[in-house]
This record gives sequence, structure tokens and C-alpha cells, in this order.
Amino acid sequence: MSGVHPAWLGGLGGGAGLGDDVVLTRDPLCGLEAEAYTIARSGGVTTVVAADEAGLMYGSFHALRLDGELAAQTHRPFVARRMVQHWDNVFVHPVMGQVERGYSGGSLFWEDGALTDDLDRVGDYARLLASVGINAVSLNNVNVHAGEARLLTDRLSEVAALAARFRQYHIRVYLSVSFAAPMVLGGLDTADPADERVKAWWAAATQRVYATIPDFGGYVVKADSEGQPGPFAYGRTHADGANVLAAALAPFGGEVYWRAFVYNHRQDWRDRSTDRARAAYDHFTPLDGEFAANVVLQVKHGPIDFQPREPVSPVLLSMPRTSLAVEFQATQEYTGQQRHVCYLPPMWSSVLSTVAGAVDAVVTVSNAGDDRYWTNHPLAQANLYAAGRLAWDPALDPIALLDEWIGLTFPPAAAGVVHELMRDSWAVYEGYTSPLGVGFMVHPGDHYGPDVDGYEYSRWGTYHFADRDGVGVDRTRATGTGFTGQYPQPLADEYESLDTCPDELLLFFHHVPYTHVLHSGKTVIQHIYDTHFQGAAAVAEMVGRWAALPPETVGEDLHARVADRLREQVRSANEWRDQINTYFHRKSGIPDAQGRRIY
Amino acid sequence: MSGVHPAWLGGLGGGAGLGDDVVLTRDPLCGLEAEAYTIARSGGVTTVVAADEAGLMYGSFHALRLDGELAAQTHRPFVARRMVQHWDNVFVHPVMGQVERGYSGGSLFWEDGALTDDLDRVGDYARLLASVGINAVSLNNVNVHAGEARLLTDRLSEVAALAARFRQYHIRVYLSVSFAAPMVLGGLDTADPADERVKAWWAAATQRVYATIPDFGGYVVKADSEGQPGPFAYGRTHADGANVLAAALAPFGGEVYWRAFVYNHRQDWRDRSTDRARAAYDHFTPLDGEFAANVVLQVKHGPIDFQPREPVSPVLLSMPRTSLAVEFQATQEYTGQQRHVCYLPPMWSSVLSTVAGAVDAVVTVSNAGDDRYWTNHPLAQANLYAAGRLAWDPALDPIALLDEWIGLTFPPAAAGVVHELMRDSWAVYEGYTSPLGVGFMVHPGDHYGPDVDGYEYSRWGTYHFADRDGVGVDRTRATGTGFTGQYPQPLADEYESLDTCPDELLLFFHHVPYTHVLHSGKTVIQHIYDTHFQGAAAVAEMVGRWAALPPETVGEDLHARVADRLREQVRSANEWRDQINTYFHRKSGIPDAQGRRIY
Repeated sequence: MSGVHPAWLGGLGGGAGLGDDVVLTRDPLCGLEAEAYTIARSGGVTTVVAADEAGLMYGSFHALRLDGELAAQTHRPFVARRMVQHWDNVFVHPVMGQVERGYSGGSLFWEDGALTDDLDRVGDYARLLASVGINAVSLNNVNVHAGEARLLTDRLSEVAALAARFRQYHIRVYLSVSFAAPMVLGGLDTADPADERVKAWWAAATQRVYATIPDFGGYVVKADSEGQPGPFAYGRTHADGANVLAAALAPFGGEVYWRAFVYNHRQDWRDRSTDRARAAYDHFTPLDGEFAANVVLQVKHGPIDFQPREPVSPVLLSMPRTSLAVEFQATQEYTGQQRHVCYLPPMWSSVLSTVAGAVDAVVTVSNAGDDRYWTNHPLAQANLYAAGRLAWDPALDPIALLDEWIGLTFPPAAAGVVHELMRDSWAVYEGYTSPLGVGFMVHPGDHYGPDVDGYEYSRWGTYHFADRDGVGVDRTRATGTGFTGQYPQPLADEYESLDTCPDELLLFFHHVPYTHVLHSGKTVIQHIYDTHFQGAAAVAEMVGRWAALPPETVGEDLHARVADRLREQVRSANEWRDQINTYFHRKSGIPDAQGRRIY
Repeated sequence: MSGVHPAWLGGLGGGAGLGDDVVLTRDPLCGLEAEAYTIARSGGVTTVVAADEAGLMYGSFHALRLDGELAAQTHRPFVARRMVQHWDNVFVHPVMGQVERGYSGGSLFWEDGALTDDLDRVGDYARLLASVGINAVSLNNVNVHAGEARLLTDRLSEVAALAARFRQYHIRVYLSVSFAAPMVLGGLDTADPADERVKAWWAAATQRVYATIPDFGGYVVKADSEGQPGPFAYGRTHADGANVLAAALAPFGGEVYWRAFVYNHRQDWRDRSTDRARAAYDHFTPLDGEFAANVVLQVKHGPIDFQPREPVSPVLLSMPRTSLAVEFQATQEYTGQQRHVCYLPPMWSSVLSTVAGAVDAVVTVSNAGDDRYWTNHPLAQANLYAAGRLAWDPALDPIALLDEWIGLTFPPAAAGVVHELMRDSWAVYEGYTSPLGVGFMVHPGDHYGPDVDGYEYSRWGTYHFADRDGVGVDRTRATGTGFTGQYPQPLADEYESLDTCPDELLLFFHHVPYTHVLHSGKTVIQHIYDTHFQGAAAVAEMVGRWAALPPETVGEDLHARVADRLREQVRSANEWRDQINTYFHRKSGIPDAQGRRIY
């Protein structure tokens, strides 16, 4: 609970909020699938029927959200796999800290190399996740360092201790493992997936895990990615690699989440023919149908890396014979790092509307830590809340989910202000940061704040190619990298043509002159100026709106925390506005049509 | 010795190279000043006469350099204070490491929080420094962290152990101290220099130092600089601050080296009226005459920060009633970090030709560490060598010094190649890096490799203001920041006028169009292209030249080390060439007149 309005966390078993007027009936013969439930409320009495304990639990949490009478409704999860992944390190990493890309204090699970001694907090977190429909959690960073690798073997008891807490809420735990584990932990001289000793090592290691944790979920693997080991070293495919782990897990019902985030991170910026956006598709689609049934290929929602605006990854539309997970990032690495208000579910909802039919799992990288508000910025909780709810039902309206979260978290007197602050906050953030889908104008390394050329001459494959005449990346089939050709129709043609490419993705797909006229009727350069002035102005308004809310309405501490973060958001938004505008003014030489101040 | 040809380090006391045919005569009544000596060689017998032991030592080192007969010559140091400063940390700093801006392995003095257990290596280093005329060394980083502050008090015995080794070679040791030491170490609630308790604390602490180390040299202080504490916090001047420490040291003959590196490091890039180049002059010249006699104001040779090309600092020409030290940087922070060959003494010599008459001390930041070649790049030793020799005699020709070092270090068969590699290496480095004196187009933080806009929108006050029309910083009196007005005549007018401003400093003083024609007859943009193609090509030639030298000529290990560093220099020079050329081509739109490849 820890200081935040606990309504949406609360209740189950403890009785708070869930009183005698709730009748829970477990009926294995009721005809409902696993985790599903039927709920009704009539005459003040709520009834929940489910075939299993998990269904009863989800129905109970639903009961907590109910307001008023309800005719019987059946709810079932859209996908069976609804996972939150943690990028937590056991040992504080010298660069990345305790939680990689974490902005909410330390890890909930580990502290300075040891298991947390606050397992009750882990229990609270498990309830929090369960209450929004999450049923799987991975405990450690996908970049698996040497110390963390040992969670799989001699530190397994710590994983078991965490699993015990999550199990209470029907959540299975997963471990990120190193593809090189047979060498790092097993003392073998190879991790070649075709080597019988390697297969035997994985089988034995996995058997030991299940002997300790019978409902263990499985493995998460980042292989051949940003320096992590993988099957390429042995001339094997990623299907070869994933299937060895899958074979070890299959007897126990476990699964491998195998990340598709594979690209050349040592690219030469001079080489304009290589396109990082193409990489996942080029690597993985030829393997469609070759992955074992218990491999889930985990694909970031966009082709690059969690930018504020990307098209959907074509991999998600192109592998019908492979189990797919779409990966979202609640931790706001590129979207304000929980110092900026940025309610992301409208973005995720838009992705899900395209890919929901193609995916078997929804994965969200957690934004929670040992911060007293869980997420540093109290309003960032809403991202985690809605991530779970959308995984359960992708058709939910993200703004309705926002109001649902607000209703469970804040008193009615604060609801309007919070709603106004958050509703358009993703669009506001996009307005004052990288324009028109071009992305990656962030400060290298920490990814916070503007640095327009920060990645322009780097090895990371994230360029904007701005010169004195224009800006953007030509990814067309006609004249560019051909990335548009990775999409099925009609998307391939829609993105290919300047006539049909949506404005907000223009610079992702095309290199255009600053004087190019958008569908909105504005030139690119004027759009850049306008959105940056407007975005920063909108943040300034947010500050005033929050300041007008009496602190006691939400609690003085929470009020002060949000006010403090808003101050930083204003400062940062102004810095973004001025750097972006100055950069493009210096390059284009074109003045702002409204004559506003550009430095 | 440690693996490098030891001729110029060798001999004194050990007999190597200094045989029975050398007659040393100490004659207090000979009329020579401290440290001076008369040397002659006739009929194979060398005679050295001096009034003190130090003079005999310097004369003996001179004897080791002698080749052939010599009529009697008297040599005396140009300045009495010839110091090498170390930026060594006792504890490994999480960002800066064991040695801040050190590129030669760990510290010679400290290792992971403890005094080195290799004091013999310290003795070798002391001999090395003495052999080139250095008589003072500061042991720790000017950024004094909490652990390092204690060298002044409870870790004084470690300083004494080092002092014992340096004393053998007539070198006095200094400590960098924190201005806040009375608070950090003394438990006072203030470090106000006007507070009697503060004065008393410094007096007592200093007395304890001298009780342990009677020939202790004094303190080095970085105050009110990049976050270090200083007198500004109490509304006091830097003279007030320095004089308190000076008063504590005066009874024992000690001195304060007080750094003039004071500027606003939280500048707003939007504010074009503030000019970091002005800062030292604006802060310190009003205090001329107010510093105690045993304060030496230590001024970086240029107004910014050790860039490959800067004008001389006007502070060095404007404080006749203050003892001044000019500060050079042998550690190659901005000049290739001992991975690039960059022989810097031609730059230092040019500075000294302007300021030698005005300075009382020459300070060089050391480039040595526990690397087996002392300086990582074996050829970087020459910078330390010549730094000492120029401090002794600023009129020495830097290329003659290069040959002197080569002759003492390498066999004749290698001399030509080494000379060719090094002679113009500063000009080559300047060619492929920042053009025309504009500076600071380096990667932020580590300062290695190109990042043209890396500091352009930062708080550090180091901008180039490149836009689609032109580049450079207007520091004129007529239209700019007025910095040129800080120079005495004729320099003030020379820099002010485009007609007389030297090409190599053009962008330091002026913002000009890319089409501006230099005195060389080239346009600015064509100069940028040409120097970058030529600079990178020159490095490629260096590689071939070195490869053609048979490894056994210089030893295979040293040959391989230099070859390895040259490979990196080629890679880096090409990266500089391409990033700079592409950046300015994208901005200016002007093609290379020779049609070479610009990406």
C-alpha cells in the first residue's frame, strides 16, 4: 500500500472493500475457461462464478471496481499470457544501476546483491499485478550479467522465495537467462545448441528449477543482441537456439520468451543502405514455423526501440506459424523517465488494434520499483494499470481505463484535474520532442533530454539525416531501404506513398524538404515549430492546473511529488522546444511564420 | 626503467652512464645561484660545478645528455618553480577512475584507496622528473573528494612516504586541498576565510604537515570551479581565500598554487552574451596586487580548456603584481588521449614565447601512470620530457628537444622514423579535428572522438554557433562578447580585425560565412575539407612509416604497442574527417572543390 490510495490494489482476502455481500462460487463444471469468470450484481449482492481459483480472483478484483448494479457478464482474457518483465539487476551495475532503465528507485526483488528482506512488499506488488490481470512476471534483467546468471543455479532458492509470493496471486515467475549459461555456469567450452552436452546441461538445469519451483514459468532470452551471446556464434539459427531451451522446458509446461530485438549495433553511420528497422524482420521471418510450440517470439511493438512514435513492427504481421508476444515498455525510457507525465495506453491500444489477432502474449516492461509510489511519478502508475487491463482486453478504450484508474485512486474532487493532465499527455510529449516519427533525438546513453545529433554519427543505426534542405529517413522501396516492403498490404503502399503516409510517421518513412506540405496543410518546418511551442505551452498549463488543486485533496506528499516532477517537465520541455527549434532553424534558415522566439 | 630505453632516466648515483670521467664539485662560494651549474667536457673528462646539491644533480643529468666536447657553459633555470601536477585519486572515482583524465593506467601513488606498495617505481619517477628539471610535484587530483581530503590530516604519513622518495631528487611535494577542509576535516560549520577559527584551523593543519614533512611544498587549490567549494560562498574574493592558506604556509616557506579556472559551468546556451573565455580575466584581474607573496595564481595557457588551438590567456599578460604560473596539460585530454601521436611542445613553446617574461612558474599536468611505458603511448613520453626542459629554458627549440629525447631513447636506426612521425603531429591532429581554433567538437564527458554538436546546447559555455550560413564565435569588441578587449595591444587589435586575425584562430574570435576567404586564399569551408582529408591521410602515412621500421630496432613489444595505437589513430582520424566534413557539408550545402567523398 505504502502511502498511495490503495483502492485498486486492495482487498482480496483481507476483506477491505470485499465484504459479505460478495458470493464467490468455484464451479469446475460451469463451462468457463481457465481464468474466466461471470460476474453480476443485483440488490447489492455481487456474485462471481468461475471454474478455477484464478477466475474467482479476477472476478473479485472486478467486484472491487464495480460501481452500481450489473447484469451478468462473462469476462475472459484475450490472451493467456500476460506478462510483466523486470530489468532488475541483482548487483548494482556500474552504469545501469540496480534496475536498468529503471526510474523508480531500487529493485523490488534485490538490493545490493542480496534478495530483498521486504518480501511483504513483493506480495503487495503481486496483488497489484494480479488486480489488473497480469499472470506472469520475469524477475531479472534481459541483459544477464555473471552474478545474475547464477539465479538459475545456486541462487535458485531466492527465486523460489519470490515465486511463493507471486503464487498467492496466480502469477508464475520467469527468469532471464544467458544463452551462454552452459559455459558461464556449466563449465562447458561451448553453448552451441547442436552440442549434446549443451542440450543435456539445459535439461538438467531446468529439471533442478522445477524440482524447486513446480509452477515455474520459463525463460526470457535476449540473444545475439547488443552484445549478449547467442546462436550466431555457432552458425546456428535463432530457432536452433530457442528450441534447445524449449525442449528442456517442455516436459514441465514451461515456455521460452525469445526476444526478436536482434540488429547490428555496430553499424557505420556512413552506410545508408543498412536499416536497423529492417533487422528483426530480416532475421526472424525466414524462421516462421521452425520454432517449437513452447517458444514465444517476443517482438517490440515498433521496429526500432520504444520511441514515442513508431509504426507497428511488421514482424508482428508476418509470422503466422509462430507464437508471438508484443512487447510494450511501461518504464518510460524514451518517454520522460517518470519525470514527465506521459500516459502511454493510447499508443499501445493503437498497436493492439492492428496486431491483437496475431499475438499470443502481451509483455510489458515494468515501471515499478521500491519507490513509495511504486513508479516515482505517481501518475505513472496508470501506465502499469492499463498495461495489464489491455492485455486482458485489448478492445478496452484507453481513456476509459484512465478514468477507471483515476476513480480507483483519487477522490472525485481530484478526478477532473488528473484526467486533464493525463488524457493527451502522450501527444503533448510527442509534440515537444522528436517530430513526425523521426525519433532518437535524445541524449545518448541516458536517453533523457534532447540531443538532436546525439545519435546521428553513432553506431546504433538511429539517424535522421537532417541537412540544410530536409530531414527524415527514406525507407521506401522506390528509392530507400525498402523497409516499407516488409509490410503486408495495404500498409506497404500506404507507407510507401507520400500521398498516403500519415503525417505522424512521415519522417520515419520519408526524407522530405523542410518545405514539404503535410496533410495538415502546414510545412514540415512550420509543423516542427508549432508543435514544439504548443507542447511546451501545454506543459506550462499543466503546472498551473495541478497547482490549483488543493494539496489536501490528494494528500500533501503526493501533491508535492507531482508538483516537483511537473517543474522538471516544464524545464525539460522548454529545453526540448528551444534545442529542436534552434537546430532546425539553423539548418533550414526558415523563420517561424508566427515570429516566435527561436534562439 | 620498466622496459623503455632508459638513457634519459638513468645513472645518477647508480653509476650507469656517469663514470669516473665526471668530476662533480660542490662549491658554495662559486657564485652560482641555487640549482644552477657550470658544465664543461674536455679530453673526455666532464666537470660540473654548482653551489648546491641540486645544481650538481642537474649538471649530472646534463652530462648524461652530452655528446662530444663542450666548452664551459653555465645553465640556470628560467623559473624557480617547475611543477608537475597529478590528477590522481586515492579511491577509484566511479566516473573518472583512479586518475582523472589519465590515460596511462593507474596512479603511480595510490591504488584502490591505499598507498602504492611500489615506492621504488615512485623513486624511478622522481628521477625521471628531476632529469628534465622538474623540482615540484603535486600528488593528488585538484578535484578533492572526501577520501582524498584526508591526505592533509590522518593520511599524512602516506604523503611523507612519497615525499621521502621525491626528496632524493630535490623535488618538493604538494597536496591539492579542498577549500572546505575546515568543514570536511575540521568539523567547523564554515570555511569562511574571514573566520578566525578557519584561519586557526589552516594554521594548525599546516603546522602538523611541516612537523612531518619539513620541506613540504604547499597547496594546490581549485576553488569555486566546476562544483568545488570556494570563497564565493561567503562573499569573499579569491584573494581573501588564497591568502588564508598562504598565511598558514608562509612561516614554513610554503606556497599556494591557486587555480584561475573559474567560470560559470551552468551557463544557458541560449545566452550569447556570456562568454566563458572572458571568465578568468573578469574574475581575477581586479585582484592584481591583492594576493600574498607566496600565492601563485595558476592560469591555463588558453582562455578555455586545453584545446588543440587557443590563443594565449590574457590573464597571463594582465597581472603584473601577481605571481603567475602557466599551466600546460601533458595528459592528452583533448589531444588524442595517448592513443594519438601528438607532440605538444611546439604549442607550449609558442605560448611561452609570449608569456615567459610574465610567469614565475610553469606547471604541467602529468601524463604518467603505472603503465610500463609510463605514458601508454611510448611516444607520449616526449611531451613530459620537453615539458620539463621547456620549464627550465623556454627558449629551447621544441624540435631540437624532440631530437634530444629521441637520441636518448631510441637507437640511431629508428631516430629518423620517430622524428618524422612526431615532428608535425600536433599540426596533423589539429588538421583532422576542430577547425580554425573553434574547439570543443568532442564527445561530451570522455572528450574523445568527434561530436560536433556534443557541447553546442550544453551548460559548459563551449559553442561554435554553426548554422547554414557560417560558423564561429564573435568575441570582438565591435559586435561580439568583447573578449578581444582583454588583450593588451597589439594583440587586441590583431584579434579584433578579420584582416589581421591569424587563420588558425579565426573561428575562436569571429563568426564568418563558410565562403569567407582566409589569408591562405582558401574559403573556410574548403579549408575544413582540405585539412580533414589531409590530416587523415597524414595519419595513414604514419602507419606505413612505422610498419616499415623493423620491430627489433626498437624492441618488438614497443613496436607493437605503437602500431596498435596508430591503428586506433587512423580509425579515429577517419571518423573525425568524415563526421566533420559531413556535418559542414550538410549545413553549408557547398561541395568539395576536389570532389572527394563526403558522406
